[in-house]
Parts: sequence; C-alpha cells; structure tokens
Amino acid sequence: MPLPIKIVFLGTSGSAPTKERNLPSVAIEYEGRVYLFDCGEGTQRQLLMNSISPQKVKAVFITHMHGDHVIGIAGLIRTLALNKRTEPLEIFLPAGEEKKLMPLITFDKAVIGYEIIIKGVKSGVAMKGKGFSVRAFKLKHSVPTYGYCFQENDRVRFDSKKCKELGIEGGMYSELERKGRIRIGRKIISLGSVAKESKGRRIIYAADTRPTNATSKISKGADLMIHEATYAEEFQKLALQRMHSTSAEAARVAKNGMAKRLIIFHMSARYKSPSVLLAEARKVFKNSEAAYDGMVITL
Amino acid sequence: MPLPIKIVFLGTSGSAPTKERNLPSVAIEYEGRVYLFDCGEGTQRQLLMNSISPQKVKAVFITHMHGDHVIGIAGLIRTLALNKRTEPLEIFLPAGEEKKLMPLITFDKAVIGYEIIIKGVKSGVAMKGKGFSVRAFKLKHSVPTYGYCFQENDRVRFDSKKCKELGIEGGMYSELERKGRIRIGRKIISLGSVAKESKGRRIIYAADTRPTNATSKISKGADLMIHEATYAEEFQKLALQRMHSTSAEAARVAKNGMAKRLIIFHMSARYKSPSVLLAEARKVFKNSEAAYDGMVITL
Repeated sequence: MPLPIKIVFLGTSGSAPTKERNLPSVAIEYEGRVYLFDCGEGTQRQLLMNSISPQKVKAVFITHMHGDHVIGIAGLIRTLALNKRTEPLEIFLPAGEEKKLMPLITFDKAVIGYEIIIKGVKSGVAMKGKGFSVRAFKLKHSVPTYGYCFQENDRVRFDSKKCKELGIEGGMYSELERKGRIRIGRKIISLGSVAKESKGRRIIYAADTRPTNATSKISKGADLMIHEATYAEEFQKLALQRMHSTSAEAARVAKNGMAKRLIIFHMSARYKSPSVLLAEARKVFKNSEAAYDGMVITL
Repeated sequence: MPLPIKIVFLGTSGSAPTKERNLPSVAIEYEGRVYLFDCGEGTQRQLLMNSISPQKVKAVFITHMHGDHVIGIAGLIRTLALNKRTEPLEIFLPAGEEKKLMPLITFDKAVIGYEIIIKGVKSGVAMKGKGFSVRAFKLKHSVPTYGYCFQENDRVRFDSKKCKELGIEGGMYSELERKGRIRIGRKIISLGSVAKESKGRRIIYAADTRPTNATSKISKGADLMIHEATYAEEFQKLALQRMHSTSAEAARVAKNGMAKRLIIFHMSARYKSPSVLLAEARKVFKNSEAAYDGMVITL
C-alpha cells in the first residue's frame, strides 16, 4: 500500500499576512520527504508549528517571484545551514527569473554548507522523483508564473491472496510487472489476472493567476486542486486589474477541469472570514473548501 | 504627564525560530509611534499579533546584518507599500553595511511608493526624535554590530498649583524653561522655585554581542536593559567562539552598569524553557527576567 499523501497548508493569505493567516506556502509530504509550493515569509516557522522538520524539505517550487511567495527562502536556507544540512536543496522557479532569487541567498554572505540548485522551469516536467513527478504549467499573472502538478506514478496493485495461491513470490512480481506475463511450471499468468492498475494521485497548485483553460485541462480528474481566490465577486474588476482570481472563477476552473475537490486559498487580507469567498465558490462547484493555516488534507 | 513607554517583545529567539519564539525584534512605542529594534523574519506578522499597526513604524534600528536580525525588513516594506504608505521609513544599520540591505529591498523590483532612508550609524547619536534620541554604541560580534540606547529627553515638570498662584500662564512656561527665570510685575521667578527636573527614561538594546564595558557604561541607571543571552554557562566556550553572551554574562553587564532591570532574550533554540538561563542570570543580578514573545513592559 502506498503511504498517504499529506498536504499541509502552512500559509493561506495573499500579499500580506493577517493575525490568522501567514503568507502562501503549501507542503506536500510524500514518502517521508517534503515538497514546498511557494515559500512566503515565515514558512520555516510554520513548518515547526505544524511539526514538520525543515530538514525534510527536499525541494521548493516557486510559482513566481513576487516577495510574498518567496521571501521565506531567505530564512529557511540559513536555518538549514545552521542545522548542518549536507543534502542539496532544489529550488524551482520560472526560467529567466533565477537572478531575482540570488540576492535572498547571498545578501549577507551567509555560509551555506550545502548546495542550492536553482532550476528554471518551463511548461513540462520540472522534477522526476521516486514514484512521482512535478509538472509546471503556465499561469496568467503580472510576472512570469507557473502552477505545479504533483503527479504520483500509476502503480500496479497485486491481489496478494491470488498471487500466493498461484505461487508468485520474490522477483516474480517485478518480472510480471515488466513483461506483463510469467510462466510458473506449465501455467502462463498474465499481469491483468492477478493485479489492477492503481491510478496515481494528483494535486494541482495554482497561484497567482487569472483563471485559465490550461489549469482546467491539467486538473482533469485531479484528487485535489489548490487555487488562489484573492477576491469575492464584488471585486471582479480588481481581480482583472491585478491578475488574480475571484473564488467563483477558481471554482469554475475546478468545475471545467472536473477536479474532485477544490481548496481555495491566498485570500486577500480584507477577509476576516472566508465565508463569502466559500459561498460564492460553492455556488459554482460544490466540492469547494476554504483553506486555513494548519489545514491538513490526506489523500 | 508623559505617556507610558511600551516595550513589546515581538521575537525572542536567537538564530532560528522555534514554535514558541519568533526571530529577534523589539518594538518601542513612544508617543504614538513605533521604533523597531532588529527585524527578524516574520516581524510584520508579530506586529499584527500584538495589535500594533505596521504603519506606525517610524524607524527600524538594525544591530547587524546577519539574516536572522534583518530578513523581516523585506516583507515589512512591501506590506507598507501595499497599504499605500507615503511617509518615509528610516532604517539605521552599521555604517559600511548599507549595501547588504539593498538586495532585500530591490530583489523582485517591487514598487515601493514611499522613501526608504538608509542611515549608516557609528558610535553616537543616530536619531533625534521629538522628546527622545537614539544613540548607537559599538558591540562585539563577528560582524560590525551596534547596540542602541533609547533615551527620552529630561523634562521640566512644573508645579501647576504654584505656577497658577504666581500668575504664570501661556508662553511664560517656555520662556521660563528657556531663560531659567522670568519677571512678572516686580517679581523675579526662578525655574527651580516652580519646577523640578524629571529624568528621561532610558532603554538599552544589546544584541548580538560578547559582554562589553561600553554596554555597562551606557546602561548606568537605565530603566531597562535588553541583552542577548544565547547560552547557559555550560556553553561558555560556544559563546566565546560565536561571539554571543551567556545569561550570566548578560547579568554581569547589567550589574556593572547598575541598570534597574534586565530582560534577557535571543535564547538559543535549544532551550525549550528559559528557566536555566534565568536562574543563572538571577544569581548575578536579581532584577533579571526572561523575555517571551508578546511580553509587554511599560515604563
């Protein structure tokens, strides 16, 4: 059985923090490692608040280089150095924007005793991990911006009772998976007769952006879509001007994409409660929820 | 009567944050304005958590350019811009280190619609405000570092009953204060006969540093000394190596300086509770307290 994927909302405010909400960052815990999506100021402490060791962070995926999505990198990398990290840290961000990150790493000439690998992303696979990949897709904001799709690989799940009865054991499993069939004595056993394909889980992270068809497209059947929803409908004009989304627009993206579940986040600091945003989203797409700091989703 | 001076501990951890403690920053509220001493990551949110409007911040005094004391500037100045600040913001830091701050201001080409005035400090008066001044004094750390002394001006307090009896009114007060005496009809009234001098309140902020005589000297009779205490005595060697202070050393500085009251802060993240640090400080200087995030002192 694959381990559960844990998604932890570390910060859910847009642009400026509030008493209740820190700046944007979402952690995906997969097979014991942590992948951060955006890294607003204070993210390293939000990790601690949610009992996630910063040392577990393997990679950070930055959507765009606006300060509220990236300033947390500066503190995080210094604390990792202080705690004697040796493993490299990978930071993904829109290709062409790499030089904007460097000042946050070098400004005080801090000694960082591990490698920081900065990778510019374009549309397509950004990272291939063990059992999953992360794909970047273009968003529509005032600066170059990419959303990310965390896609677990499809898996073969064996019917262990059946396999045992047929005498399948040890290396036979991988042979069966590789070749699609094996011979045991006189019997030929096909993969399909003892195993089912289990679809990999998929999570979409889209911020900051106007609603786009590309987001809907990549969300087709996604287990979870996390989409920014900076404003309620009364500020539709502001959403257009500043290239953000209303919660209803986020919901339409989820609906068109037939995502299974939508979590809206990156709410403007003007909303003390997300209830208006959530109500407007649910009118369009029933399976909508509003994120809060510390919210945990398990897939 | 002068208004109370409110000192709010926004962050009290050293180097790395913990669940309980944010990175270093102390706010002094004086006559409706806020003066920040250091500005660790997350300071803008700590202001909100303590119901202090970031817009009230008039000036920031940075002791030294290590990331944990200064990264909060990056987010703070952007939120002030978002909230349409027009008033300039003054940032004081060790002279010669100005260029290290610039990357935090410019890295993402954010539009900052107000002036940021960066002032390099040397030993001596850094700022003269209405009714107070802030003096910088050299500390002893691994990079150029200054402590700060917030000194309220001495005031003349008139005996209002006596003054009324003698017919002192309106502009006579300032004339009396300026000249030391005035004539009313045939009478010459000296300042001393109708007023007392009231000593201005003084607060010392010293981090990061080895204990120094200069800190003791400037603390003579200070109402409050805030001194870093990164380690307990068992880590005396580490304190020497990394140029920090133990809590006992901080207490000796306060004792030698005859400060009225010591608050230790900037504790290493290894201390879940400050009790050891506090006990060791109190052995040396009884009037010691340990800071916690959200601690408020009123003078």
